Amino acid sequence: MALLGDKEFFKGIGEIKYEGKNSDNPMAFKFYNPDQVVAGKTMREHFKFAVAYWHTLCGTGGDPFGPGTKVFPWSTASDPIKAAEDKADAAFEFITKMGFDYYCFHDHDLVDEGATLAESEKRVQKTVEYLKQKQEASGVKLLWGTANCFSNPRYMNGAASNPNFDVVARAGAQIKIALDATIALGGENYVFWGGREGYMSLLNTDMKLEQDNIGRFLNMAKDYARSQGFKGVFFVEPKPMEPTKHQYDFDAATSINSLREYGLENDFKLNIEVNHATLAQHTFQHELQVAANAGMLGSIDANRGDYQNGWDTDQFPNNVMETAEAMLVFLKSGGLQGGGVNFDAKTRRNSTDLEDIFHAHIGGADTFARALLIANAVLENSPYQSLLDTRYSSFTKGKGSEFAQGKLSLTDLYEYAGKNGEPEQISGKQELFENILNQYS
Amino acid sequence: MALLGDKEFFKGIGEIKYEGKNSDNPMAFKFYNPDQVVAGKTMREHFKFAVAYWHTLCGTGGDPFGPGTKVFPWSTASDPIKAAEDKADAAFEFITKMGFDYYCFHDHDLVDEGATLAESEKRVQKTVEYLKQKQEASGVKLLWGTANCFSNPRYMNGAASNPNFDVVARAGAQIKIALDATIALGGENYVFWGGREGYMSLLNTDMKLEQDNIGRFLNMAKDYARSQGFKGVFFVEPKPMEPTKHQYDFDAATSINSLREYGLENDFKLNIEVNHATLAQHTFQHELQVAANAGMLGSIDANRGDYQNGWDTDQFPNNVMETAEAMLVFLKSGGLQGGGVNFDAKTRRNSTDLEDIFHAHIGGADTFARALLIANAVLENSPYQSLLDTRYSSFTKGKGSEFAQGKLSLTDLYEYAGKNGEPEQISGKQELFENILNQYS
Amino acid sequence: MALLGDKEFFKGIGEIKYEGKNSDNPMAFKFYNPDQVVAGKTMREHFKFAVAYWHTLCGTGGDPFGPGTKVFPWSTASDPIKAAEDKADAAFEFITKMGFDYYCFHDHDLVDEGATLAESEKRVQKTVEYLKQKQEASGVKLLWGTANCFSNPRYMNGAASNPNFDVVARAGAQIKIALDATIALGGENYVFWGGREGYMSLLNTDMKLEQDNIGRFLNMAKDYARSQGFKGVFFVEPKPMEPTKHQYDFDAATSINSLREYGLENDFKLNIEVNHATLAQHTFQHELQVAANAGMLGSIDANRGDYQNGWDTDQFPNNVMETAEAMLVFLKSGGLQGGGVNFDAKTRRNSTDLEDIFHAHIGGADTFARALLIANAVLENSPYQSLLDTRYSSFTKGKGSEFAQGKLSLTDLYEYAGKNGEPEQISGKQELFENILNQYS
Amino acid sequence: MALLGDKEFFKGIGEIKYEGKNSDNPMAFKFYNPDQVVAGKTMREHFKFAVAYWHTLCGTGGDPFGPGTKVFPWSTASDPIKAAEDKADAAFEFITKMGFDYYCFHDHDLVDEGATLAESEKRVQKTVEYLKQKQEASGVKLLWGTANCFSNPRYMNGAASNPNFDVVARAGAQIKIALDATIALGGENYVFWGGREGYMSLLNTDMKLEQDNIGRFLNMAKDYARSQGFKGVFFVEPKPMEPTKHQYDFDAATSINSLREYGLENDFKLNIEVNHATLAQHTFQHELQVAANAGMLGSIDANRGDYQNGWDTDQFPNNVMETAEAMLVFLKSGGLQGGGVNFDAKTRRNSTDLEDIFHAHIGGADTFARALLIANAVLENSPYQSLLDTRYSSFTKGKGSEFAQGKLSLTDLYEYAGKNGEPEQISGKQELFENILNQYS
Repeated sequence: MALLGDKEFFKGIGEIKYEGKNSDNPMAFKFYNPDQVVAGKTMREHFKFAVAYWHTLCGTGGDPFGPGTKVFPWSTASDPIKAAEDKADAAFEFITKMGFDYYCFHDHDLVDEGATLAESEKRVQKTVEYLKQKQEASGVKLLWGTANCFSNPRYMNGAASNPNFDVVARAGAQIKIALDATIALGGENYVFWGGREGYMSLLNTDMKLEQDNIGRFLNMAKDYARSQGFKGVFFVEPKPMEPTKHQYDFDAATSINSLREYGLENDFKLNIEVNHATLAQHTFQHELQVAANAGMLGSIDANRGDYQNGWDTDQFPNNVMETAEAMLVFLKSGGLQGGGVNFDAKTRRNSTDLEDIFHAHIGGADTFARALLIANAVLENSPYQSLLDTRYSSFTKGKGSEFAQGKLSLTDLYEYAGKNGEPEQISGKQELFENILNQYS
Repeated sequence: MALLGDKEFFKGIGEIKYEGKNSDNPMAFKFYNPDQVVAGKTMREHFKFAVAYWHTLCGTGGDPFGPGTKVFPWSTASDPIKAAEDKADAAFEFITKMGFDYYCFHDHDLVDEGATLAESEKRVQKTVEYLKQKQEASGVKLLWGTANCFSNPRYMNGAASNPNFDVVARAGAQIKIALDATIALGGENYVFWGGREGYMSLLNTDMKLEQDNIGRFLNMAKDYARSQGFKGVFFVEPKPMEPTKHQYDFDAATSINSLREYGLENDFKLNIEVNHATLAQHTFQHELQVAANAGMLGSIDANRGDYQNGWDTDQFPNNVMETAEAMLVFLKSGGLQGGGVNFDAKTRRNSTDLEDIFHAHIGGADTFARALLIANAVLENSPYQSLLDTRYSSFTKGKGSEFAQGKLSLTDLYEYAGKNGEPEQISGKQELFENILNQYS
Repeated sequence: MALLGDKEFFKGIGEIKYEGKNSDNPMAFKFYNPDQVVAGKTMREHFKFAVAYWHTLCGTGGDPFGPGTKVFPWSTASDPIKAAEDKADAAFEFITKMGFDYYCFHDHDLVDEGATLAESEKRVQKTVEYLKQKQEASGVKLLWGTANCFSNPRYMNGAASNPNFDVVARAGAQIKIALDATIALGGENYVFWGGREGYMSLLNTDMKLEQDNIGRFLNMAKDYARSQGFKGVFFVEPKPMEPTKHQYDFDAATSINSLREYGLENDFKLNIEVNHATLAQHTFQHELQVAANAGMLGSIDANRGDYQNGWDTDQFPNNVMETAEAMLVFLKSGGLQGGGVNFDAKTRRNSTDLEDIFHAHIGGADTFARALLIANAVLENSPYQSLLDTRYSSFTKGKGSEFAQGKLSLTDLYEYAGKNGEPEQISGKQELFENILNQYS
Repeated sequence: MALLGDKEFFKGIGEIKYEGKNSDNPMAFKFYNPDQVVAGKTMREHFKFAVAYWHTLCGTGGDPFGPGTKVFPWSTASDPIKAAEDKADAAFEFITKMGFDYYCFHDHDLVDEGATLAESEKRVQKTVEYLKQKQEASGVKLLWGTANCFSNPRYMNGAASNPNFDVVARAGAQIKIALDATIALGGENYVFWGGREGYMSLLNTDMKLEQDNIGRFLNMAKDYARSQGFKGVFFVEPKPMEPTKHQYDFDAATSINSLREYGLENDFKLNIEVNHATLAQHTFQHELQVAANAGMLGSIDANRGDYQNGWDTDQFPNNVMETAEAMLVFLKSGGLQGGGVNFDAKTRRNSTDLEDIFHAHIGGADTFARALLIANAVLENSPYQSLLDTRYSSFTKGKGSEFAQGKLSLTDLYEYAGKNGEPEQISGKQELFENILNQYS
């Protein structure tokens, strides 16, 4: 396909390659070696790295105290379809230069909304046709699609949770179109993140009705997509707050609770975002573990927050050890179900060079790659797993094993304890576990 | 019963009475009028105020940077049973002087643990006998009992979630004894709060096994208590952290998720604590609402946190408006299921006068009473409920009503929205709602 | 002046009047009675309430997840000067309908920036001419002016702290123009808030040079304004973070430290904002007290944050008791030096009715008025001050008095303590103090 | 000296040696090579690692929800002096086995307080005599001493800031004794950390008087120590909260402001603690930089907090990259003035093996060593410093240089900017800076 190359947006930057740790080239991977096999899979297969359309192609750096700073050469056309095609060209140029295989989008990342629902649908459909060709030409695939039901002022009181049914219906229509687009592009998964699904003030909110409405709504969406032949996984993405003061999908446990309440647990899994985890006062690895325990570890939105700030900074991952602890959970849980690692991250508002986008993604991919290597080394070469097994060994034999099989009563415990005397004191050895992790990094 | 009065621990302080807002007497209620009827019940019935044995009778003010400061005249006896009886005398003197009807305890608030399980059980049984007499003489009742399975060093790695089965069994034995004591004293409910049920470091933790073990354990405890004729409600008490870095019962939604996962949802409800809510980045009213939505609003641990600090300060309630927003949820949800309002709060470390305990409880009871009056006025006299009903009225008619009954598909929404055009913009009017609340306070 | 009334932007809303607590009229003050005398001054004089041009006239509700929602009828003209005049008409209509006496602005709240510095200056000057007439016609005054040196992309790396001198100079030029405008309009004060003065990452920052540059810059600005006859007070406004990850004027103490370091302490005072205080993990009253202790309590930006969120929500004040504790400090410190109470607050993104702006300001003014009445009652009628004096009475007599006069040495203390024995234990009686505050509310 | 070895408390553990990164021995340093020269000094000289008496010898693991868990074999003697000597033996055995050169103490870490001031003084003096011999025998030195004026109930309302002069005097006496002890032991520095210097509630507090009293008090202490020939540095240690709700020495900037206000800036420097920095919403490196900018970077209390919890967890350092960013500031500022790196950290409550104390200190020392190597490599081998110099180069030439020398006026800036046109947009390149740091780690 001739599209790539006709106009080159990221001029002077070639394909990013793996050059190893000692390379001095800032435009090379130091750790991410796509074809390197770790724990039975290539890094490429483990991660399925995806580029986030909204940040990388659309995000010009606005914040609550100022407008965007970044001038994107693909954002000059006045015709919305032409602009969408330029953006797609830039997207696929970037993804292929990075050597990644996937992208993710919201409907109106692809193309601006039109004046009416019908006009918006037409625009999405046209852009989807163009993207299909880009996918075929490049081999790049769609990891997941989603609908942006939070930016447009109509959703200011919520989308599926809106107190006004007309808005709920409008959201439903938009999601139908986004599902159609995702299916048309062979999207492997579909995500729900409801930035305005929650409340600003409990005073003016009927929380029960709103949550029941969301439950009904997700069931409708799932039924529709399945009726259209969609075989992929649906993800909900927990976030505790922002933009809404309180969001209903606060964290992994809250989201799992809702999915179970509304009978969605067989079709839905979770998309865990690092910065959302920390905003909810959890670690990234905690949220991964909660999802994995419920069999719902679906996908990852890779970024990082700022431990000293209280909002979603969506910085690119660079904390190797935080990510290594996450990769321990990742490897022990057998990886992701359906999803991949999507860089839901943005360069800083004052990172205005186009090459900064490359630095950011290189740093992010290297962080995950290095973390995976560390986690694998800890599991393969260190005494870590053996220490852990020993710690829980009392449940594999004798009365402990009977307990773990649910065969004992409270009276049994009482009698056992009465005979047994004071239990031995056993150190948790946290510092030793931590040292091992550092040693293998 | 002659016990009260033989020795008076709170000398010079008589019964606390309601004197109305304009009273200058610091030792009088200004708002809490036990027999005043609000929304169809007396304040006494609404709140079932309870005194927390651990703080009020046992808490001498130690913190991580220094030992206790408070010298309690009831803590002088060297014989543990005598000391327990003195403490009970002080407790019942205090409760009756406050005019409250309830108390709550952990097993070893009542009497110090013995050297062996058998000795501990004997001590608890003796103290229970004494408390029975105190209850009969005074009419004071037990709101709930619980077992302290977090202070003793043996529980440093958890109780029901301990990696060592011997400790799990020891916790089971202790809880059996505490259940027996609660039943013997006619306790209306039984609480589980697992201060060490969680993890210090995910690195050395098998979270799935630990949570499954807790699930099994709670089922055993419930089965035992039911087999002994206990008809009351079991409560779990969410808390996100402290003492454990991460506690499994993080918040209301997380706890409900676990109760459902382990089949406990019919016997268990939640005990919501103000300071635990705010530590989890929620409001008190949010946690009440989440519990109420699931039919699990069981009981309240009344206190407050410090919005600038990050630990459980357990201060006495004094934030009238925070409590008024909670009382709105309380009244609209039909109050508490089984439980009451337990003052799980402590006077500051430097509040060393015995009379400070009275100031604290008076301030706390007045805060709840005033908040109830405000919430009732808002519901009865203001346009609040009517504004709220209007806000959600689209779901009571036409297509919105069909949606709320689950009769529509995503395609129906798509078609409706296509015809309907851009929905009308409707203000959330948060500032007006907030003004109403302030106006009726 | 005929301007007001030619076109009425807030149609159907008349002048807001005081109607007392029992009024059912949502468009009336319940507590703010401008001419009521409290502690020797009218409420009007105490507060000098000001309307913030940026929020009330310019803020359409955009946030990081969506654009503005609010359609302002004064924002339709395409000519920038005409648009500025319409906005000024709306501003003065609103201020006079509220019965307030003051407003505050950033330069480019008044009128949009032009393509060049010269064009921007011309626009500001023209708008200033128009505002002069509005001020004369209405009696409304300018509490303070400031320059917005944080929104324009040129300031993305800082203004006075920018690593590029050209940007520093550009900021200097802009501030000269804003000072000229403030002086021309008889502004009573001038504010510096540097939203981008701080760092995004310490890694790429020379903090010492940047702070020294700010010090030099503020001295230049002060010297210039004084040379132009400005007699008012300069304020710096502390804020810990947002938009910048770390802002140099983190809180009151940090700002005072800088003012002293750069020799600015005689001309500058602090403008304390409620939400900035809480973002810095302080209370509002704490920051007021720190400023007052240094003789630098200049002005107040009235709003409130959300205790469960971690960013600047800039909600309108409605927390009466938080404000009452602040008013205690306010009254005891003799009020503000030069400044007033500016409503630096915005209606929620989903509060889209024009009348919501009135509800918000009414609620805010009533909150301050009620808080002032409470604080005054506590000081005048309660035992509060006497309890406090007693608490510190040991420094008014004997050795304690000598200590407070600096007459003792460490050896004197050693000898006194040796003779004195263990000091008496004296309760801090915090619960009693708190009860008093609630009782007088 | 025969003391060490007579009784060995840490049995079976020999001297900890450097074995390099690939060693499998958990009881060896992997990175800390005391005699390795980095940036012109040995690691030993850079760090001056010190053991904290209070945590390592005295801290048995109590927390607000349970008593201590750790049984120390050196804490068995009932005679206080014998117990103090056993503890000193254990301390010196541990320090020498670790190969460290320093220790730090509070007065009553060394020996329990007596019933009277005189008795306490006598005990301290006796223990000091013993420690002198231990120091001579081992070559271990005292990095700093301090007095614990926060644990004893008498200080519940503050020590130097107590509302009761008798307590202020008692604190003065205690500090005199601690200064005498520090001087007698050749202590290189003396620390002030006032855990109770602050307020619980602003309502019952005269903040101005309390802070003035602290200022007077510190001057008295300094004058006394200087009169006794003490040549070392005084440190104050910032901490924002805990145990006190608000502590006066909130952070570095606040502390510097106070030192300047009370004329202490020539004798005092700061002791920066990692976990105190993060509790104050700063990074460790930020606090180091603030101190260094003021010429007050004196010493470090090495530990780490938990980013998801809100209290002082005092965990051992293990975050290599957090520490590497700190070591960048450290190296660029020329290291510490007088102080060293004191492990103010404790093993977890459930780390009950004696060997855990070794794991913890090994991990901590390795973290600092590795971080120093990274920071040095970044400064020596990477483009980091050159990128940074370029970023600020506009202040080294032309008008920028004149500005930096204070030669320009605001009008000069206005004129320069008018001619200069819109400044060039220059990326901050944060992602590149971050990648460099990761690459050299």
